[in-house]
Amino acid sequence: MTQPDLPDVSGLSIGILGGTGDQGKGLARRFALAGHDVLIGSRNAERAREAAASLELTVRGDANAQVATEADVVIVAVPWDGHKATLESLASELAGKIVIDCVNPLGFDKQGAYALPVEEGSAAQQAAAVLPESRVVGAFHHVSAVLLLDPTVGEMELDVLVLGDDREATDIVRALAERIPGMRGVYGGRLRNAHQVEAFTANLISINRRYKAHAGLRITDV
Amino acid sequence: MTQPDLPDVSGLSIGILGGTGDQGKGLARRFALAGHDVLIGSRNAERAREAAASLELTVRGDANAQVATEADVVIVAVPWDGHKATLESLASELAGKIVIDCVNPLGFDKQGAYALPVEEGSAAQQAAAVLPESRVVGAFHHVSAVLLLDPTVGEMELDVLVLGDDREATDIVRALAERIPGMRGVYGGRLRNAHQVEAFTANLISINRRYKAHAGLRITDV
Repeated sequence: MTQPDLPDVSGLSIGILGGTGDQGKGLARRFALAGHDVLIGSRNAERAREAAASLELTVRGDANAQVATEADVVIVAVPWDGHKATLESLASELAGKIVIDCVNPLGFDKQGAYALPVEEGSAAQQAAAVLPESRVVGAFHHVSAVLLLDPTVGEMELDVLVLGDDREATDIVRALAERIPGMRGVYGGRLRNAHQVEAFTANLISINRRYKAHAGLRITDV
Repeated sequence: MTQPDLPDVSGLSIGILGGTGDQGKGLARRFALAGHDVLIGSRNAERAREAAASLELTVRGDANAQVATEADVVIVAVPWDGHKATLESLASELAGKIVIDCVNPLGFDKQGAYALPVEEGSAAQQAAAVLPESRVVGAFHHVSAVLLLDPTVGEMELDVLVLGDDREATDIVRALAERIPGMRGVYGGRLRNAHQVEAFTANLISINRRYKAHAGLRITDV
């Protein structure tokens, strides 16, 4: 299913802001296993180094600003809470880079998860507003952290929807998704259509509860 | 993949409001092929009868109000434009029934499709607000009208996400989805999480343009 028209991204280093959370750590693990130089970022450099060491791979950890400076491509995996402030503080380090936002603005109550309203429309659009000099792409919203971190799971069975207005950037991110076995990177529309992809994570959480699953998406006929 | 815990719905008659549109007509065709008694509704009974006759099956056509009265289960496939007014005018006919809303509130411009804001949150929630005595379920949002109407397509390769707050009603609708070969009915969350499922149709339209496809969804690990 790998798509032959995609660029070679095997040499790109990947930084993960908020890489001490499960989602970020899980992505770090899979990209390191795929042979990438991976840097985990955190507000606290020491915590980042601990998270990196816990993976028992060649992943390194450092402060978010250092990771943003050093990595070729940067994934934003911070809690929604600190999303805007973190990105504002890193705007100069992230200038000119591809920034992949995988943050899902969700609330939780007794009935489960639901989508939070976002002034800019979506987390990805907020990132684009705060980082006008970066190439913001939305992707990796639906990847299960549990499966990413599970050593018995060799293949991630899902399509990664890649959203953005910059064709070259979305192609690079699609290619990055395909570095992880089982994943396919599928163009999913412009940034203005990112909200529903982020919000759909609430539905996947409902599905996981009902079916006791780690649900993902596949796009048929593509 | 059929799920054995679902109720037997083979005897239910299905009414389709706005059944003269491609989506409604396509669903009418598939449910008639599956052996259901199907009624196509329109504001104009004559147009409904013409649409029904054009399918060359046993489908009947009538005015929306008559269809809403007669059918066991009613699918709402009207244009978003007339959604609220149509349902308001049929509230008494639809009382006590399962009403399946498959309407996607979308706008279109040069850059393609995008989600329209809906005061109630989603078309399905608007239906629930306007029809307090009906059992409103959201489903069939992503089904390609082209494939539904294509006589060379025997199986619809997609999962139908079924949203609602009434477990018995969502199970019945899941079972109805599975009457169409290839389709699977997957519970997709509560009505409050319907917006992103409706809006995701804009992403599928983007995907269709990029990949020249008739994209659908499959949920993995379920």
